[in-house]
Amino acid sequence: MIAAGPCAVESEEQIMAVAEGVKKAGCEMLRGGGAFKPRTSPYSFQGLMERGGLDLLARAGQEYGLLTVSEIMDLSDYREFQKIDMLQVGARNAQNFSLLKFLGRVKKPVLLKNGIGTTMEEWLASSEYILSGGNDRVILCYRGTRSLERSTRFTMDLGTMASVKRRTHLPSARTRATPLETGR
Amino acid sequence: MIAAGPCAVESEEQIMAVAEGVKKAGCEMLRGGGAFKPRTSPYSFQGLMERGGLDLLARAGQEYGLLTVSEIMDLSDYREFQKIDMLQVGARNAQNFSLLKFLGRVKKPVLLKNGIGTTMEEWLASSEYILSGGNDRVILCYRGTRSLERSTRFTMDLGTMASVKRRTHLPSARTRATPLETGR
Amino acid sequence: MIAAGPCAVESEEQIMAVAEGVKKAGCEMLRGGGAFKPRTSPYSFQGLMERGGLDLLARAGQEYGLLTVSEIMDLSDYREFQKIDMLQVGARNAQNFSLLKFLGRVKKPVLLKNGIGTTMEEWLASSEYILSGGNDRVILCYRGTRSLERSTRFTMDLGTMASVKRRTHLPSARTRATPLETGR
Amino acid sequence: MIAAGPCAVESEEQIMAVAEGVKKAGCEMLRGGGAFKPRTSPYSFQGLMERGGLDLLARAGQEYGLLTVSEIMDLSDYREFQKIDMLQVGARNAQNFSLLKFLGRVKKPVLLKNGIGTTMEEWLASSEYILSGGNDRVILCYRGTRSLERSTRFTMDLGTMASVKRRTHLPSARTRATPLETGR
Repeated sequence: MIAAGPCAVESEEQIMAVAEGVKKAGCEMLRGGGAFKPRTSPYSFQGLMERGGLDLLARAGQEYGLLTVSEIMDLSDYREFQKIDMLQVGARNAQNFSLLKFLGRVKKPVLLKNGIGTTMEEWLASSEYILSGGNDRVILCYRGTRSLERSTRFTMDLGTMASVKRRTHLPSARTRATPLETGR
Repeated sequence: MIAAGPCAVESEEQIMAVAEGVKKAGCEMLRGGGAFKPRTSPYSFQGLMERGGLDLLARAGQEYGLLTVSEIMDLSDYREFQKIDMLQVGARNAQNFSLLKFLGRVKKPVLLKNGIGTTMEEWLASSEYILSGGNDRVILCYRGTRSLERSTRFTMDLGTMASVKRRTHLPSARTRATPLETGR
Repeated sequence: MIAAGPCAVESEEQIMAVAEGVKKAGCEMLRGGGAFKPRTSPYSFQGLMERGGLDLLARAGQEYGLLTVSEIMDLSDYREFQKIDMLQVGARNAQNFSLLKFLGRVKKPVLLKNGIGTTMEEWLASSEYILSGGNDRVILCYRGTRSLERSTRFTMDLGTMASVKRRTHLPSARTRATPLETGR
Repeated sequence: MIAAGPCAVESEEQIMAVAEGVKKAGCEMLRGGGAFKPRTSPYSFQGLMERGGLDLLARAGQEYGLLTVSEIMDLSDYREFQKIDMLQVGARNAQNFSLLKFLGRVKKPVLLKNGIGTTMEEWLASSEYILSGGNDRVILCYRGTRSLERSTRFTMDLGTMASVKRRTHLPSARTRATPLETGR
């Protein structure tokens, strides 16, 4: 199963056009990671939250028969996410234990990314925060880690991907490897 | 100025005894990092939150004439922290932007630690989330980073400490270097 | 093309038995990395150099119709390697520029591994030491790098493997990924 | 005791002028790291080896009453180093075990730097290669390591410096920390 979609929901036209393309390409899930967009700097575009980014995402999903997934950054935002099918926890909140505990008590599946500088052990321990609360629908999504290598943006460790499959019964996924993009 | 205290507030006897020692040693601030304690695993001791850890910390501070600082892990807990003098953001929440934005609007000073796998640029960008909200009382606290070295728990980078002083007007601090402890 | 063989040549029986198996498995090259074996500690088994490890390797190659490759650790050992088909430069000597320059002037192909803590740029720069000397038969062999991850021995970065193919005309290889082995 | 001097010996005028300054500044040792200069790329200036860089260094040392230290990159160059007081092993050769074993049998003190991506354990193991050969005059020189931090050139880990002093009887040193220089 493949989820695809924009980094940030920017407008109705954008998300509808993307959803149409995602559907035609044969994917089953629309990703609007960034209905709120966690940005390293507060001066970057932060997403459309206040102006209904999640509503647009949900409507695009319905319109094109796609499941939806979006990143939740704080438990106090949960009400807005009711209409989204799956909740994503991003790298920066991979050890936000208050959020993880909260997600252990909700009825939605959670897509849990690994933290940028965390080990596999810590990632699995984070998943336990959700599982131990009673929510057993956790998908581990490997988004790469940071290493000494600077010519690629992130390091996609084959060993971590293989180990995660062995060491847990949880389904796993990975982000599109973009190893050739250089940048910070 | 030195802040000292236990990793986790465990009982009234403990925090009172520690506060007395901290005062006698000439420190001015009592740290009860861990009134909630962010632990990698949900099965470790999580601190005394529900049973009034922050109340105990505040009372110990008053009793011995010490300022207090404790770690806030979620903005929904803020009310409990009213009686604490300074709010700490720990390594795991160093890029929890919802929390950082919230702290930009409160009236208390914030002690911001660096994330375990974040760069100095990202750490300074996190401080901007607080500063840009209007709260200019941010103290940067270097707690070390993770590196290839495995014989010490964390890596205390002299260069980062020096650079932070040069590149920002913010006051800076560091955790007690515990370089010789081996562990995770 | 696959090269296989023992970490260290230990005895005639051993290398002959391995060579037979390597041939039967359909490989074309016998690896006896460790005719000299670079070991982190001087107190570990160092290989059979003085007692003719390379002779045994060459004979096993001839006996079973296999090409041979072995690690050269110092240019002063070159004479011993005349009978070996390909010279390997290991991770620890990946920036031993005296050795690399010397190998730029020999008539044998070189299998160049990346260093444990070097970047891709540095690896390619190391290959230039050989190429600029006039030896254009260099094979880049990715053996993984060290990262923050501790549950696997080394990190096999998919992005580095892909980038190397794009950024150079040199043939590339990789070591058997042993991501699930834990240890030093 | 402080050693100072240029990265590379470039000319007689240069090394004599530097030696005079080093002496006046109260240092006791002249460093001409780079009579041969190990450069990442073969196309960078490689030092004055063929044109007598080590002779110039030795003469400057004698002229100004300074001890001398220079980096040896291959055991076959040893004869050229007879007139130098201390031999330096640089980061790139920190696990060049052929060189280390050779240095275990010479009569000169060795300044051993740590490798860029090696751990403290590996560094100490490298020193054992020299010590176990009978040469007990080894000085450990910490030159920093590579980490995730990119705003400084290298990471000067306080913990490693402290640990090395505790875990070995060997004298230790460190390079001038240049944490604020940005670069590769």
